[in-house]
Amino acid sequence: MRRILLTPGPLTTREATRRAMLTDWGSREPDFIALTAELRARLLAVAHGDARHVAVPLQGSGTFVVEAAVATLIGPDAKLLVLINGAYGQRIAAIARRYGRKVETLAWAEDQAVDPQAVAEALAADPAVTHVAMIHVETTTGLLNSLTAVAQVVQAAGRRFIIDAMASFGALPIDLAATPIACVLASSNKGLEGTPGLGFALIERTLLEQAQAVSPSLSLDLHAQWRGFEANGQWRFTPPVQVVAALVEALRQLEAEGGPPARLARYQANFDVLFAGMSRLGFHLYLDPALQAPIIATFRLPGDRPFAFEPFYQALSDRGFIIYPGKLTREPSFRIGCIGAVDPDDMRRLMDVIGEVAPPPASAA
Amino acid sequence: MRRILLTPGPLTTREATRRAMLTDWGSREPDFIALTAELRARLLAVAHGDARHVAVPLQGSGTFVVEAAVATLIGPDAKLLVLINGAYGQRIAAIARRYGRKVETLAWAEDQAVDPQAVAEALAADPAVTHVAMIHVETTTGLLNSLTAVAQVVQAAGRRFIIDAMASFGALPIDLAATPIACVLASSNKGLEGTPGLGFALIERTLLEQAQAVSPSLSLDLHAQWRGFEANGQWRFTPPVQVVAALVEALRQLEAEGGPPARLARYQANFDVLFAGMSRLGFHLYLDPALQAPIIATFRLPGDRPFAFEPFYQALSDRGFIIYPGKLTREPSFRIGCIGAVDPDDMRRLMDVIGEVAPPPASAA
Repeated sequence: MRRILLTPGPLTTREATRRAMLTDWGSREPDFIALTAELRARLLAVAHGDARHVAVPLQGSGTFVVEAAVATLIGPDAKLLVLINGAYGQRIAAIARRYGRKVETLAWAEDQAVDPQAVAEALAADPAVTHVAMIHVETTTGLLNSLTAVAQVVQAAGRRFIIDAMASFGALPIDLAATPIACVLASSNKGLEGTPGLGFALIERTLLEQAQAVSPSLSLDLHAQWRGFEANGQWRFTPPVQVVAALVEALRQLEAEGGPPARLARYQANFDVLFAGMSRLGFHLYLDPALQAPIIATFRLPGDRPFAFEPFYQALSDRGFIIYPGKLTREPSFRIGCIGAVDPDDMRRLMDVIGEVAPPPASAA
Repeated sequence: MRRILLTPGPLTTREATRRAMLTDWGSREPDFIALTAELRARLLAVAHGDARHVAVPLQGSGTFVVEAAVATLIGPDAKLLVLINGAYGQRIAAIARRYGRKVETLAWAEDQAVDPQAVAEALAADPAVTHVAMIHVETTTGLLNSLTAVAQVVQAAGRRFIIDAMASFGALPIDLAATPIACVLASSNKGLEGTPGLGFALIERTLLEQAQAVSPSLSLDLHAQWRGFEANGQWRFTPPVQVVAALVEALRQLEAEGGPPARLARYQANFDVLFAGMSRLGFHLYLDPALQAPIIATFRLPGDRPFAFEPFYQALSDRGFIIYPGKLTREPSFRIGCIGAVDPDDMRRLMDVIGEVAPPPASAA
């Protein structure tokens, strides 16, 4: 049975991507150095980056590269404002506090988008803030924050903007040529549809140049990691060579698919089938649809029928669909992802399965 | 052409190990939780660990888990003595200094083993030292330090012993039941013959219990990582699921091969062919053979014939053998690994190839 992961990642990958992992590579051999160069160039190209930004991949999960960016860019003299409407915004603030950095937060409810006007006011009120961090798509709920509007506010205030684009990169528009962003953070195993094990930062070169020996961590130091690549094309420390190869293959496939616009169209079609089907089955989306990104959808547990997450999860799993538990702080929910190597036909099959497993009450059917 | 990596890792893996990466796994699904539990149990078993130690895998390269161990175990009140006879010992000291921890070093030349008597004297002279760190096999040269003798000295002085067993784990004897070791650190892609992307620590439970919120890093916090596994069997942050699956497969194969003793016998046989063959071809081992581990061998560049590393490397690579540059601080050298899914027949073929590519002068042939 083909298993389909409808999760925020690791997710369903193409077979060609996984097959790229069948080769052993020496991490310092010329062929692998060439693969690393292709990886860095393709990551930058996905976001229309030019020579002003550099791509710095890092071993580990997405959180590792988020931490590395905070550790490298937020020095003892800097102050970070974190815009929070979910668990991943909270995590950035926790990382900065743990390093003893100056950090301020501006928070919204989990079902509310970041408000650019409030950000402008907060920046006007606190001239000490040097950097602003925001989650592009909050995986906690699936909410889409306005990248362009907030970036413009941050630029107008003369501060630097750091975006956690973990869930959006590869699908939603991120245009470094048009939008003032100092640092974009994402990972191998979401919209790029690679396998997990790598994060990466696209960082303004001038900002990174100033960040020598700022990070208290040797491993999570994006300046040193970048200098390593620039020096000899090699990774400072052993890279996950198969994960690198899979991500390069996945990036080639992204280009072949038509780039982020084509990928977004597919994810949107997946979401449309999911949203229409779940509505028909009596499941309610947690977010206002106007705030919903076509990445991962949070549904409230239905009140009109006997329902518990664990047996629902297991019944779907038995039929080949892996979904995700909820992460809301205030009410029980579950999540279904729209990303990965899945298409609207997969989502239609899922709707049939959910209709069997958790049908609406007879009166409503 | 089958390519053979004779490097310190990433190295040559078995096809079954790489094929274990062809599956997509949801990181929070029960099957993957079971795989993680098997991973942790098998890692502990390789070192004869019992309930006194726990296995804590961590995303990233080996250096990431070394840093995590220093960050987690060496608090502001602790003092670390690092025993250094190569680049990896230096790296541990650099990590501790960067975190602002108290650190002392005791150093030997790169061709000299750590001297247990000198360690005993250093500990007697500095009662503030709480932990001692040593590299088991220094990949810089391939030198084997005496685990048992140094562990006993450290225990006798009432301090805690941390071993970087990156190059030795899975092959050389490491017996937590017999040897007093507080923490063993290693990675997926060396003697265990998995693919790169994971490190792990085997840590004394009582030591780890005391280490809550000690690490300045959120990602590199082995206490929190351990609590995550204990809470629900899941990884705190996205694991490299395919690398985990490959490592579990590799651990099953290690057991099938006969465990570390059988693996060591194969590596020793590889080394014996290499050493005898290279000697016959006029290449000289850098280390005294008595100090040499059968893991990776450092050879001096020959002075009796025209020789440069780059063309030598390329000629071997063209014939399917990937070797490794030297890392000595004081003289030019190159390295050839004996580890990974290679056997003495592979090493014999390598000897034939080196005999063709860099033959000894006619007078000596």
